[in-house]
Amino acid sequence: MFKDFKLLPGRPVYIQVKDYMKHLILKGALQGGQKLPSTRELGTLLKVSRNSVISAYAGLEDDGFAYTLQGQGSYVAPAAANTGSLESEVWTMDWSQRLSAQAVLADELDIMKRGIRAEKGTISFTSIAPDESLFDLDNVKRAFLDRMAVEGNVLLNYGYARGYKPLIDYLKQYMEHKGVDLRGKEMLITNGFTEGFDLVLSTLGKRSGAVLCENPTHHTAIKNLRLHGFALTGIPMERDGLQLEALEQALAEREYDCAYLVPSYHNPTGIVMSPEKRLGLMKLMAEYKVPVIEDGFNEELRYSGSHVAPLIAAAGSGNGVIYLGSFSKVLFPGLRVGWVLADRQLIDALESVKRARTIHTSTLDQSILYQYLLGGNLEKYLKRARAEYKRKYELTLACCKEHISYTTVSGDGGLHLFVTFAEGFSTRELLAACRERGVIFTAGDIFFTNGEGLNTLRLGFSRVAEAEIRKGIEIIGRTAKEMMG
Amino acid sequence: MFKDFKLLPGRPVYIQVKDYMKHLILKGALQGGQKLPSTRELGTLLKVSRNSVISAYAGLEDDGFAYTLQGQGSYVAPAAANTGSLESEVWTMDWSQRLSAQAVLADELDIMKRGIRAEKGTISFTSIAPDESLFDLDNVKRAFLDRMAVEGNVLLNYGYARGYKPLIDYLKQYMEHKGVDLRGKEMLITNGFTEGFDLVLSTLGKRSGAVLCENPTHHTAIKNLRLHGFALTGIPMERDGLQLEALEQALAEREYDCAYLVPSYHNPTGIVMSPEKRLGLMKLMAEYKVPVIEDGFNEELRYSGSHVAPLIAAAGSGNGVIYLGSFSKVLFPGLRVGWVLADRQLIDALESVKRARTIHTSTLDQSILYQYLLGGNLEKYLKRARAEYKRKYELTLACCKEHISYTTVSGDGGLHLFVTFAEGFSTRELLAACRERGVIFTAGDIFFTNGEGLNTLRLGFSRVAEAEIRKGIEIIGRTAKEMMG
Repeated sequence: MFKDFKLLPGRPVYIQVKDYMKHLILKGALQGGQKLPSTRELGTLLKVSRNSVISAYAGLEDDGFAYTLQGQGSYVAPAAANTGSLESEVWTMDWSQRLSAQAVLADELDIMKRGIRAEKGTISFTSIAPDESLFDLDNVKRAFLDRMAVEGNVLLNYGYARGYKPLIDYLKQYMEHKGVDLRGKEMLITNGFTEGFDLVLSTLGKRSGAVLCENPTHHTAIKNLRLHGFALTGIPMERDGLQLEALEQALAEREYDCAYLVPSYHNPTGIVMSPEKRLGLMKLMAEYKVPVIEDGFNEELRYSGSHVAPLIAAAGSGNGVIYLGSFSKVLFPGLRVGWVLADRQLIDALESVKRARTIHTSTLDQSILYQYLLGGNLEKYLKRARAEYKRKYELTLACCKEHISYTTVSGDGGLHLFVTFAEGFSTRELLAACRERGVIFTAGDIFFTNGEGLNTLRLGFSRVAEAEIRKGIEIIGRTAKEMMG
Repeated sequence: MFKDFKLLPGRPVYIQVKDYMKHLILKGALQGGQKLPSTRELGTLLKVSRNSVISAYAGLEDDGFAYTLQGQGSYVAPAAANTGSLESEVWTMDWSQRLSAQAVLADELDIMKRGIRAEKGTISFTSIAPDESLFDLDNVKRAFLDRMAVEGNVLLNYGYARGYKPLIDYLKQYMEHKGVDLRGKEMLITNGFTEGFDLVLSTLGKRSGAVLCENPTHHTAIKNLRLHGFALTGIPMERDGLQLEALEQALAEREYDCAYLVPSYHNPTGIVMSPEKRLGLMKLMAEYKVPVIEDGFNEELRYSGSHVAPLIAAAGSGNGVIYLGSFSKVLFPGLRVGWVLADRQLIDALESVKRARTIHTSTLDQSILYQYLLGGNLEKYLKRARAEYKRKYELTLACCKEHISYTTVSGDGGLHLFVTFAEGFSTRELLAACRERGVIFTAGDIFFTNGEGLNTLRLGFSRVAEAEIRKGIEIIGRTAKEMMG
């Protein structure tokens, strides 16, 4: 015994000794009531200081694994050893037979589980996550330390379902500066866009069970809408946003519970809906009284042109738009913070659903983000990030013009471009062939509500080095040419 | 114009100037195409440096609110001003008519919204959150800085739905040291216990729609089980845990989808189920093949007695127990981190549901917790916290013996005691009367599945100073005597 003890770095020795002894007790090598080696003895056996063993034994006692008899030494506690003593009648069940339909569907629609893994050295255009080398860690650290200094204890204890008040106040003003009329509106902080969207879909009553969206659109949104049992009606996109005629026709045909829309830097097409179209759209939604879930995704990644106000701003003092905001594509996705800005009454209901699901969003994440924003770091960061991403954006665009000039490329900013080949061309086949040559991208069909888009693909450039962008798109172009013979 | 500009501390001047100008543009005080004051002019008007104005104008341009004409100065961007121009046909809707049944129920069952607010100076026994004055902030700060130094950029970018790998590995070993056989099991990190429980309830298929639980039990669990549409069968508690006879009878009567149990420091009774009973319980569950959701809540707050292995340990290599763990009552609730340890196949399904709901738990929270645990801080902290809470525990117990000796008091550790008065005595009336005298507690009926417990109450002592514990229970005792005439 005591031969297989190995010390690991970065962890107090006495705890490693304690854990090791627990291990021996639990596997029955040391029986309840049995005397433990003296501290000196064990120290010699494990080649650790006697003090470490003394602390380890004290720890075993604290945890109820041992007890001391004055002057006689330490003994294994009786109950401690007898666990797992049900082995005789261990029972196992087949969980696959116990899963809910929702869980089965969630697994089916979970493309992350089936996504192609990029082997080392592969040039991958699949991600639209921010480039972490741009992160200004020092400002994040400072924000953390500043906030901890002000109210550390409070931040580490329970917070409020609604969110961290200073952050809410900051973000409300932030939205006001996008032209939003805050009258009658409130805000809920969520664990990023995804939780916000899930909460809204859970809170909206199903009437018609039908939802309008752009086609193509954000594939995670498609997944979550389906998980909530909604039927999707996709409205085709054109250069300046969804086709209003098609939208009006769809609205005239039947009822909808809501519309999910991404008016700025639309995922996957990267299109920014024109101000005129936004007004036209809002007129239609008002006419048919269909509430809008607006995905504010990427709004900050404008590289040129005038500020375009979000739909919730165009709605003025109306309460028909639910705005979902997040900095995940702009700042730090690791901080799971997003927000819902909507009618006060709706937010009140969302708060209760949120409380039942996750109690509240990490106060630490919220307070770090707040301090970071307050200090004006977002502006500084965006200046750098925009310059960086804009260069990559223009390079990717140029490479597409050079190597796949015959395709239609869309994208007014953001972190990706959307490419459409001629009808009948298969981007899945292209992907398979390019993968052989060390280049991958996202085949576009997953963004479509109706199985279309087999001839489309999305190029995420945010995390690809410029040399790789050139090389990667050259390979895509060459491979496509070969396919077209 | 420019008269109402006020500078606030803690935020860069140029951003405040930029925001102020945006405000003027958005409310139409500055029209699209209009020339902005020269930087010198505005600096004088707002009493800020010219450089601040220069940066502010650059910022307005970055945000698309202004443009510069070489040598002529800055102008308001055309699109920027025209927002909210839908006012003409603003449309509002009645959201109360659009809420899902689940949202309405969540609001109904949301006791946080209806909970009594404690006025300043009130002695409140309602909370069982940790005492934040015990938090070792310096170790948390160190953990954060150490982790950021190792992999800061990675921590701030997207993580994995399953959780932060080093934390998962650490917690698996942690569970192994509680006697758990990890074979065939996996772990999912969640946003605390609540998300874990919600995910499990969403993932378990509804067959009978019935769930077993202790009666009384954790009121949040009751809420969430009801929100998921489960019918509850409560099993009465006795001194050493739930009544096995009553359990067996219930099991014989009908089918159950699962049992939700809190074997250690049960909420609200504070009872620790005896090892013998745990084995008896597990035998029954195995016989009737009813999976168990084990709430590991407070397991660490043992003040005396031997280590008692969790149910999932008693299940050995079986896969019938789903263990939900969290340090929220022991360490920092503000860090929203919990874990689900269960059958590998089940965790795989839970992962997809989790990804669809919140993508992943804050990587920052997870990595800070990991570094904190690795460094052996939990052991040090628990030593202090246990000593502190044990003293309050014993004091509360003593005060109950002194002032309400005629009641039955339960609680083997943890952060609260449960008090049962004679049948017919109303703790709601007692609460109302005590409140008048500046003392509040939690009336026990909310913990019961069947409207019982009107003569019970829960005393949370973790955040009450010792002098207040004495004073508060003295007042409760006096008030109760008066009520009983």
